[in-house]
Amino acid sequence: MARVLTPRAEDFPRWYQDLIAKAQLADNGPVRGTMVIRPAGYAIWERMQSEMDARIKATGAENAYFPLFIPESYLKREAQHVEGFSPELAVVTHGGGKQLAEPVVVRPTSETVIGEFMAKWVDSYRDLPLLLNQWANVVRWELRPRIFLRTSEFLWQEGHTAHADEADARAYARRILHEAYEDFMVNVLGIPVVVGRKTARERFAGATSTYTLEGMMGDGKALQLGTSHELGQNFAKAFDITYSSADRTVEHAWTTSWGTSTRMLGGLIMAHGDDDGLRVPPRIAPIQAYVMIVKAGDGVGEAAGKLRDALRDAGVRVALDDRVDTPFGRRAVDAELKGYPVRVEVGPRDLAAGNAVVVRRTDGSKTPVPVGDVVSTVLAALDADQKTLHDSALAFRESRTVDVKTLDEALEASATGWARLPWAAVGTEGETRANGQGVTVRCL
Amino acid sequence: MARVLTPRAEDFPRWYQDLIAKAQLADNGPVRGTMVIRPAGYAIWERMQSEMDARIKATGAENAYFPLFIPESYLKREAQHVEGFSPELAVVTHGGGKQLAEPVVVRPTSETVIGEFMAKWVDSYRDLPLLLNQWANVVRWELRPRIFLRTSEFLWQEGHTAHADEADARAYARRILHEAYEDFMVNVLGIPVVVGRKTARERFAGATSTYTLEGMMGDGKALQLGTSHELGQNFAKAFDITYSSADRTVEHAWTTSWGTSTRMLGGLIMAHGDDDGLRVPPRIAPIQAYVMIVKAGDGVGEAAGKLRDALRDAGVRVALDDRVDTPFGRRAVDAELKGYPVRVEVGPRDLAAGNAVVVRRTDGSKTPVPVGDVVSTVLAALDADQKTLHDSALAFRESRTVDVKTLDEALEASATGWARLPWAAVGTEGETRANGQGVTVRCL
Ligand SMILES: [Zn+2]
Ligand SMILES: [Zn+2]
Repeated sequence: MARVLTPRAEDFPRWYQDLIAKAQLADNGPVRGTMVIRPAGYAIWERMQSEMDARIKATGAENAYFPLFIPESYLKREAQHVEGFSPELAVVTHGGGKQLAEPVVVRPTSETVIGEFMAKWVDSYRDLPLLLNQWANVVRWELRPRIFLRTSEFLWQEGHTAHADEADARAYARRILHEAYEDFMVNVLGIPVVVGRKTARERFAGATSTYTLEGMMGDGKALQLGTSHELGQNFAKAFDITYSSADRTVEHAWTTSWGTSTRMLGGLIMAHGDDDGLRVPPRIAPIQAYVMIVKAGDGVGEAAGKLRDALRDAGVRVALDDRVDTPFGRRAVDAELKGYPVRVEVGPRDLAAGNAVVVRRTDGSKTPVPVGDVVSTVLAALDADQKTLHDSALAFRESRTVDVKTLDEALEASATGWARLPWAAVGTEGETRANGQGVTVRCL
Repeated sequence: MARVLTPRAEDFPRWYQDLIAKAQLADNGPVRGTMVIRPAGYAIWERMQSEMDARIKATGAENAYFPLFIPESYLKREAQHVEGFSPELAVVTHGGGKQLAEPVVVRPTSETVIGEFMAKWVDSYRDLPLLLNQWANVVRWELRPRIFLRTSEFLWQEGHTAHADEADARAYARRILHEAYEDFMVNVLGIPVVVGRKTARERFAGATSTYTLEGMMGDGKALQLGTSHELGQNFAKAFDITYSSADRTVEHAWTTSWGTSTRMLGGLIMAHGDDDGLRVPPRIAPIQAYVMIVKAGDGVGEAAGKLRDALRDAGVRVALDDRVDTPFGRRAVDAELKGYPVRVEVGPRDLAAGNAVVVRRTDGSKTPVPVGDVVSTVLAALDADQKTLHDSALAFRESRTVDVKTLDEALEASATGWARLPWAAVGTEGETRANGQGVTVRCL
């Protein structure tokens, strides 16, 4: 097969960029750092949203929507925020044809405005816990943008909760971490994330604990796929989120925040993609089975249509490609690029023998299967390949992770993958030295 | 019952505002003209999205996401746009801590940026029709904001499609109008919209035809709930959306655009609300049955829990209110305000007789029902009340619409409702005169 993408081993960032363009997942937007998410990419994001949203709601959180525009003064309320965000802010100075009396900021997160409203809505301990989530776009000006990974505008969900005591806040931050995020990433995205705490240095400004989920990408590097923060009472004190307790004393609430974003699309591509294109785990794939008419012929169109219907009736997300005026080879390369888990190729020759060909994206196998067995074969392949993608990502991670004893060994190992070592062998000074060499301590 | 809201007859706008606050649907945001959509309001919007999204996808459109920020120059491309939008634009002049070389606009619609990308993506007639939809926030600076109806930021879906010929574009604009919008508004929202074309004056800038869906609100006034536009080749010419035909000639595409927004939340409130609060049609209601424990007592909690489970198992969206430390009267008033279609009240006295009380929001009826019959009673009530709300909105509309022959009669009728008359009796001059008196020609 002709080379379609730059091979990963040759230039991983270039491979990533090629794949996004050729699989029609996204384009750069006209304003530097913004992106256009094309239908093939957005359909994956929609499935991510629906799977995550169900898990988030199962923890008791409710969705709401807070405004895009935030008064500049809000961000100054919490000193640590301004420092963290001000070089990244987009500022609106003109509205309705006039200069604004007070400039407004395009939200880099809704944390401050949500804090303001939590303070209004929370009165007594009966109003707690208050569990809010929002799906929205946010803006953080980005000087070195990369689609899905670092863009000036991205889509995300941000959760913000207030609790009556520390134990409840901690339990909730961990529940989201494990029941929503880890479960989704491992069992749906097929990415065997490592879950743990960040060092004091890598922690979110204002957080007392930051939990992270780190996936290993195809180049052996780590990508942070989500975080969940315990904010102690820091945030409640800055925003005056207080409640009257059952004993009628006034207390500050304990808050958490947690988020995941379109960066997960980048993680999905880099964790599972190969030199032929994307490989989408069946549980997240918008199209699980792609029925292709190889070329026109006696009964071929009818047989393909029936297979499409039978697969759909069996609960498979299926699409039919009947563009016989486009060469089959080109369409097959495109299907590989887009990473449909299973292709069902229907052509005159195989059909004459009563067969269709089932092609699995995960291992490239091509198997002629009697037409009557296609549905069961596809269902079995989808199940097996979900597991295969996860297990090979895990095997890859293990092959690129070494257990070491000293920081020097760890720095050496970081050239090709991850190193696991006791925090005592690193310490804050060791972390400074590692950072100096472009290596970060990802997870405790 | 104590008066909770300003009665509609006394001050309709005030009633609307009171209801939104007391039913906890939304709040004003900190930046003038923005809104916070609270969980009770957002849950309705989520159901609107999911019902509409399914209908839009059934027409063949795919979702995508285009950037929030648009170069100012894009809006100047199409002269009619600048005129229409420039007094409404929010302009970002600073990003990443610096003044931007070229200011960027926060999208008032994505039409121009989608046009730009359609031009890139469409090459041959095989790429048509290109059917795109987007769910997003947009900003149009608003000097006289009203929550849901006119806000500086609102949420919407905007569809943009390109077709090979006029007939296909026209058929598609009408398909969205009827199969997606009208079907949803009539059969789910229970609002008997009038569907038709706008006059040349009321038409969208650049459109060759604008179709509208108009609902009558509780004050007899019209609210536009959605529009679908045929743009002819105007837009394709401004954005250079061309394709090579089967005969290898280069042609301009024919485009459409269509949208609905969070304004539908305002329409829902004003079409069905009464002096006690919201009335939500069962098919759109996030909570269809609200099981309330009247007060603690022998077996009451258990019975209520079982009813909740039985309703859920029967496919009813159900919630349980067991806050027995809050007076029942207050909770009942709150349930009326929030407009849950059916309440199931479980208290010790009725339960001793083997009953629960089924309260229907639509007509206020309270019926003791044997516990074993609650599920079937609720299911029947949900069906009947969906129809009742639609039919009473229709009856109200008819009672407030008169058939007249002259413009003078029509202007008189418009004080309390709508007038239906031949366009020949109005004409462009008549329209000018009507506009001068604050009356608009809504629908041909
Ligand atoms: Zn903070
Ligand atoms: Zn236009």
